[in-house]
Amino acid sequence: MKSNSIEYIPIGVIHSPYRSEGDAPRQSFLAEDGESAVIEIFKKFCDGLKDLDKINHIVVVYHLHLSDGYSLKTIGNNGLRGVFATRSPRRPNPIGISVVKILSIDGCFITIDKIDAVDGTPVLDIKPFYEEIDGVR
Amino acid sequence: MKSNSIEYIPIGVIHSPYRSEGDAPRQSFLAEDGESAVIEIFKKFCDGLKDLDKINHIVVVYHLHLSDGYSLKTIGNNGLRGVFATRSPRRPNPIGISVVKILSIDGCFITIDKIDAVDGTPVLDIKPFYEEIDGVR
Repeated sequence: MKSNSIEYIPIGVIHSPYRSEGDAPRQSFLAEDGESAVIEIFKKFCDGLKDLDKINHIVVVYHLHLSDGYSLKTIGNNGLRGVFATRSPRRPNPIGISVVKILSIDGCFITIDKIDAVDGTPVLDIKPFYEEIDGVR
Repeated sequence: MKSNSIEYIPIGVIHSPYRSEGDAPRQSFLAEDGESAVIEIFKKFCDGLKDLDKINHIVVVYHLHLSDGYSLKTIGNNGLRGVFATRSPRRPNPIGISVVKILSIDGCFITIDKIDAVDGTPVLDIKPFYEEIDGVR
C-alpha cells in the first residue's frame, strides 16, 4: 500500500444481467426496461439499510473492477477529451456512480430498476438521493 | 492491505474556507453564497481536465478523511436511521459526493461555487454532471 493511498472495502455486490462490459449499457439510463438488478448488501453491513424503504431513489457508488488502467485523454463521441470531462470507466480511480430507483427491499437485497454495472461489481456505498444535494440548482 | 480491499489514490485536494468539520456546512447546498472553493488537481493528473471548460456542473467525489469509524445506525433529524438511508459521513466507506457549479478553471485549479468539504479533503474523482445519468427520471 502506498503511503497516501485510501483503502475501502466492498459492502456488497451487484447482481445484474450483464456478464461482461460488452453486455452492459454504457450508462444506467440506457438499459432496457425490465433489466432490473439486485444489490446484495453483505450481512455485516445489512443493519445500515434500516429505513431505506422510505427512500425512492438512491445514489449507488461502485468499484469498476474490470476497468484496467486509465487514460487521461479518451476518445468519445466528442473526439479526444480529458477523462474528467467524460464518464469513461478508465479513470485514475475507477469509481462508478448511478442514480437508480428502488423497486423493493427484501432483507439485505435491494431490487433496483436498472444499472450499467456488470454482474459481480463491488458496491462501496449507498446514499439516499436528494434533489437539493444531487441535483443542479 | 486486506485481501478484498480496494485501493484508491488522491488525484487532488480541496481548498475550502472550512478548517474543521464544525465549520463546514452539513451539505454543499447549505453553504453561504460567496463561500467558493478551489479544487487543485495534482500535476500528474492535470491533463485529464482538458475540455472541462465546456462543462457547467461536475460531480465531485472525495474522501471524508476526518470521518473516524462508522455507525450502521445514526441519529439525525428523523430519529435513528440506517446509515445508508442518511448522508452521515460516518459510513463504512467515507466517500463524499457533491454536485457543484464550475466558476472558472485556471490550469490545474477549478474554482467551484460551494462545497461542504473541509480544507485539505482528498479528491478521488471529477465527473461531468449529466441530467440523464445523475438526475431522477
